[in-house]
Amino acid sequence: MREFKKLTPYKEALETALRDLEELPGVEEVPLEEALGRVLAEDVRATYNVPPFDRSAVDGYALKAEDTFPAREYNPVELTVVDEITAGIESKSEVTNGTAVKLMTGNKLPKGANAVVMQEMVKREGDKIHVLRPVAPGQNVAFAGEDVKEGEIVLKRGRVLRPADLAMLKAFGIKRVKVKRKPRAGIIVTGDELIEEPEMEALASGKIVETNSVMLTALVREHFGEPVFYGVIPDDEEAIGKAIERAKMECDLVLITGGSAFGEKDYAHRFVRLLFHGCTNKPGRPIGYGERVFVMSGYPAAVFAQFHLYVKYAIAKLAGADYKPVKVKARLMGKVPSSLGRHEFVKVYYEDGKAWPIRKKGSGIISAIVESNAYLEVPEDSEGYREGEEVWITLL
Amino acid sequence: MREFKKLTPYKEALETALRDLEELPGVEEVPLEEALGRVLAEDVRATYNVPPFDRSAVDGYALKAEDTFPAREYNPVELTVVDEITAGIESKSEVTNGTAVKLMTGNKLPKGANAVVMQEMVKREGDKIHVLRPVAPGQNVAFAGEDVKEGEIVLKRGRVLRPADLAMLKAFGIKRVKVKRKPRAGIIVTGDELIEEPEMEALASGKIVETNSVMLTALVREHFGEPVFYGVIPDDEEAIGKAIERAKMECDLVLITGGSAFGEKDYAHRFVRLLFHGCTNKPGRPIGYGERVFVMSGYPAAVFAQFHLYVKYAIAKLAGADYKPVKVKARLMGKVPSSLGRHEFVKVYYEDGKAWPIRKKGSGIISAIVESNAYLEVPEDSEGYREGEEVWITLL
Repeated sequence: MREFKKLTPYKEALETALRDLEELPGVEEVPLEEALGRVLAEDVRATYNVPPFDRSAVDGYALKAEDTFPAREYNPVELTVVDEITAGIESKSEVTNGTAVKLMTGNKLPKGANAVVMQEMVKREGDKIHVLRPVAPGQNVAFAGEDVKEGEIVLKRGRVLRPADLAMLKAFGIKRVKVKRKPRAGIIVTGDELIEEPEMEALASGKIVETNSVMLTALVREHFGEPVFYGVIPDDEEAIGKAIERAKMECDLVLITGGSAFGEKDYAHRFVRLLFHGCTNKPGRPIGYGERVFVMSGYPAAVFAQFHLYVKYAIAKLAGADYKPVKVKARLMGKVPSSLGRHEFVKVYYEDGKAWPIRKKGSGIISAIVESNAYLEVPEDSEGYREGEEVWITLL
Repeated sequence: MREFKKLTPYKEALETALRDLEELPGVEEVPLEEALGRVLAEDVRATYNVPPFDRSAVDGYALKAEDTFPAREYNPVELTVVDEITAGIESKSEVTNGTAVKLMTGNKLPKGANAVVMQEMVKREGDKIHVLRPVAPGQNVAFAGEDVKEGEIVLKRGRVLRPADLAMLKAFGIKRVKVKRKPRAGIIVTGDELIEEPEMEALASGKIVETNSVMLTALVREHFGEPVFYGVIPDDEEAIGKAIERAKMECDLVLITGGSAFGEKDYAHRFVRLLFHGCTNKPGRPIGYGERVFVMSGYPAAVFAQFHLYVKYAIAKLAGADYKPVKVKARLMGKVPSSLGRHEFVKVYYEDGKAWPIRKKGSGIISAIVESNAYLEVPEDSEGYREGEEVWITLL
């Protein structure tokens, strides 16, 4: 087995891959109900002012503010209630000096009124109210366009749609949403050592159960992509070559796991002109990229790290998604030693501001990935962190 | 319109609702590929040790550690390579004094060997290696059961399944997963003021576009539930009563928006024996709960707050999900005043340790929910926070 002559620094490698990938042009229309989590394909502008008119921000009485200027608790101002309206109804009455209209939050401000007094601030007697305190012009009024102005961009292209965004789209009459097509990520798993079921005899002879396919499929789904699984391919040069060719034709990105190093049976990189191969990230050093193909490790924990360090950003770029993983400051509950020259991906468990490093080594270790809900990156120029240090971690 | 006589403190109200709800018994089996995000219905135990045997943690040479004790750079120890194996293959050779077996990470440790020297630490010449440094017994060996011990619980009942969990399940031969049935949340939207399309004439008369249904549907989906929409019902006592009855029969939880206050046309609470009605949370004060029904506000921003303060915890309890929203420490980039006696739900935008309060008032304001990606809760006994203070926020 040859070693990598030179490791590409992680950041440089990531940038190289991202520079090589372009946002996909494909757009599709989906019903609003199915748009959650999809990537918006175009800017959405407000087609009207919200609110579309001056409206009351409280339940109370619309009036002319100047009528209330002399109002005091010991000297209330009396006004006549000329109309009472409920939600969604417009008052036909005009407010003139000495009169008021009872209304509810959201009601259009009646003609003539320029302020609203909260109902708690008045005494009602028959069709009269007694206003106890002065109200300023504009008080308790939500002005037209105060929330959103007509023509304003309310949701940007690239936005990953969340529940409130769907409400916003509906408010502007959008019932079918233009979203980006999901990038298709072909997944090819290779390795003679892989078995589908945990049979003890096979395990005892050194075989391992193949788990990368189901994990990568889920990771791709979680990150704007549509996974396409091409099966487990034996360590056979021709079979691997064919699978890569087919996946490249049918998909926007190809993830091939196993055989990413330089072992005799590591064929994957022979079919792809790689822009880099072998990087400083640990685990997952033998990663390569070229021609829309990531050549990845075979070990699940290495694959997991490679996905989060590289692949998710690649899918986001293809998807045109405005994506940035959430970074959080946390107090380290154990020390994290790291080697100079390595970009370490350290799995941690985060809760309430604290991060516990998961001290299991070995890139085959699934339990460590399962226990983690975040990760800490230690760049090449750091020797790690002390227990108790505050560090930035990335949530999974 | 009557006012609430007494507001129930938020925490007390939440606990009252959660005490009234019980985890649903329903379990269903789904293929592993569809289990992402589902709630595990039973503990999963390891059916074998991982690794199932002592194996090499590096690419190198398996040997007897004691052979290497005298090894120094200037005085290397020579061993004869008696076998070379690749991934997933078991060596038939036994390692005896003076011999070594070349192997790869993950290979079963050959009989007789008790340590592995990394290939970088030896010089290879023909079938000989020269070991340059001593190796301790057990060095570079992953011992049987080191990752997971047979019989150990690897995933707990209630776990919300993530990508690596699926890999773990597959490793233990689980291809169909027992998950909790999703709680069915019936959504009823009420209000005469609601329209389906933004027609200017209707908007000008005070109508508003109905957006709660699509937002609640998405929120329920994001939080372990299956939404069932019962349509927009006019402010008609009989129609509302019927919708509630039907939704209660068909669903595990009912969310009804609009008419949660005591207005003349607020009928919802007349059909449900409420355990509380009117709470200190702001916005969203006129919330009620009883008989598996949440009576919620009509204003989108109030509904949004009520969902995050109450409903998501209720669905998680019904689902049996081990759920805790992620809390993060953040520096406040603006002051947050709050009234004593109010549990305020303040929308913020979080990025890289900083939280910007979103200073839009009015519970109808959708743009403020759209801009937020987290929220700050200010309990009843606090008058708020100063700019620059470190506060705990909850990620959306």
